[in-house]
Amino acid sequence: MQTYETTFRVRYAETDQMGVVYYANYFVWMEVGRVEYCRSIGILYRDLEKELGVGLAVAGADCRYLYPARYDDLIRVRTGVSEAGPRMLTFSYEIENAESGRTLAKGHTKHVFVDRAMKPCKLPKEFRPLFETE
Amino acid sequence: MQTYETTFRVRYAETDQMGVVYYANYFVWMEVGRVEYCRSIGILYRDLEKELGVGLAVAGADCRYLYPARYDDLIRVRTGVSEAGPRMLTFSYEIENAESGRTLAKGHTKHVFVDRAMKPCKLPKEFRPLFETE
Amino acid sequence: MQTYETTFRVRYAETDQMGVVYYANYFVWMEVGRVEYCRSIGILYRDLEKELGVGLAVAGADCRYLYPARYDDLIRVRTGVSEAGPRMLTFSYEIENAESGRTLAKGHTKHVFVDRAMKPCKLPKEFRPLFETE
Amino acid sequence: MQTYETTFRVRYAETDQMGVVYYANYFVWMEVGRVEYCRSIGILYRDLEKELGVGLAVAGADCRYLYPARYDDLIRVRTGVSEAGPRMLTFSYEIENAESGRTLAKGHTKHVFVDRAMKPCKLPKEFRPLFETE
Repeated sequence: MQTYETTFRVRYAETDQMGVVYYANYFVWMEVGRVEYCRSIGILYRDLEKELGVGLAVAGADCRYLYPARYDDLIRVRTGVSEAGPRMLTFSYEIENAESGRTLAKGHTKHVFVDRAMKPCKLPKEFRPLFETE
Repeated sequence: MQTYETTFRVRYAETDQMGVVYYANYFVWMEVGRVEYCRSIGILYRDLEKELGVGLAVAGADCRYLYPARYDDLIRVRTGVSEAGPRMLTFSYEIENAESGRTLAKGHTKHVFVDRAMKPCKLPKEFRPLFETE
Repeated sequence: MQTYETTFRVRYAETDQMGVVYYANYFVWMEVGRVEYCRSIGILYRDLEKELGVGLAVAGADCRYLYPARYDDLIRVRTGVSEAGPRMLTFSYEIENAESGRTLAKGHTKHVFVDRAMKPCKLPKEFRPLFETE
Repeated sequence: MQTYETTFRVRYAETDQMGVVYYANYFVWMEVGRVEYCRSIGILYRDLEKELGVGLAVAGADCRYLYPARYDDLIRVRTGVSEAGPRMLTFSYEIENAESGRTLAKGHTKHVFVDRAMKPCKLPKEFRPLFETE
């Protein structure tokens, strides 16, 4: 599986009073990871939406939390496509502390392609090879 | 000034590692307050946008923080319109702990009416009396 | 399974440019649901943390998205405990549109009890019967 | 005024259904700007909190919104200290589109130093020169 790595720091806004990153924010990080993955293979997600009128609605998401992320940690998200079809895509993610290398979380998001009315549709043919998982 | 009160509990997601509510979330609460204010005078904000194509873009916002809000506190937002014109509106807010009555924060948001292309526009005449500050 | 229902409106802040609720926010709603579930069985989550020094770290979370939630929708979260042990708890959630009754999403969160140093621990015995799934 | 620039992309999570960045998120960006400003002058904000037990509670915040930021825009936050005393600090921010150079927003946050109990305190003397405004 081809993967792409994105790195950023934990924001104060992302912590909660337990002193660690609030669990829902890992899904925001996955979004950052998949947008940068798409950019790395030549797809600007905003153009998909604006020019083709195709969006990636989320059909499912999961995350296993292994070790807490903390404020100001340098985070690395390693993103790949683990499943691809004309109507759907599954991304896989590994979230790590970029300094220690320790794995913090693993997750997936499953998407269906939708048109501007949020109806399921097929990804135009010319884009499909980009997401192929070989 | 006519005001409207909305009450809700602080969410865990809204706290940060200092153990209090993260400062940007007060602006989310102001949004909750102004939506409910509009509902109380007979305006559904979603219909403004969907049916009239008129949105309320934010032109300015400020908040003074007097006392920290904490997880699970019952919050009351008291919202009023402090300034109104055909092209703009200013809302004022008082954010209190609903149990102790203590004032936690005070703020304002200034809005301009915009059309679907985000261009400034006038609020249709029939709605203007609703926002009048007398 | 004993369940508890919580109802609230979708905030504007929770939408994204696709015009629907951003997927990570469903996990915030699950948090609202489980806090209110705990309150309904006599447990104040904040007291667990503050007085007992016991927190509920999230070990896993998943969500299936069936139908999009939109701004200003009235949302109902139905929360129950589907698995309980001295060291862990799993909550199950159904998220519905409270007006139409339509199911929007289903999910789970798995938690381990942790002490103030974020180390796994056991829930004090007197609290365990409250979470029993029978 | 010495300033420091931080650059990052708008996240999908930060947009709302108007198709632009939700107004409260500019305050999150200001936080990113001031943390990086502090790092640039040799202060790790997390060490201030953890080792010295000194936090920067927000006493006030304001923002003027000049032009909307959109999904995937490259954002530059230019941060400086516009006022400094032993008990307080004011940061000033200019938020720009890093590609077009257009100014999107300007704002300030005013902070008071607080100890672990959230009581106002003075910044230890050795740190004060770092924040001097000329």
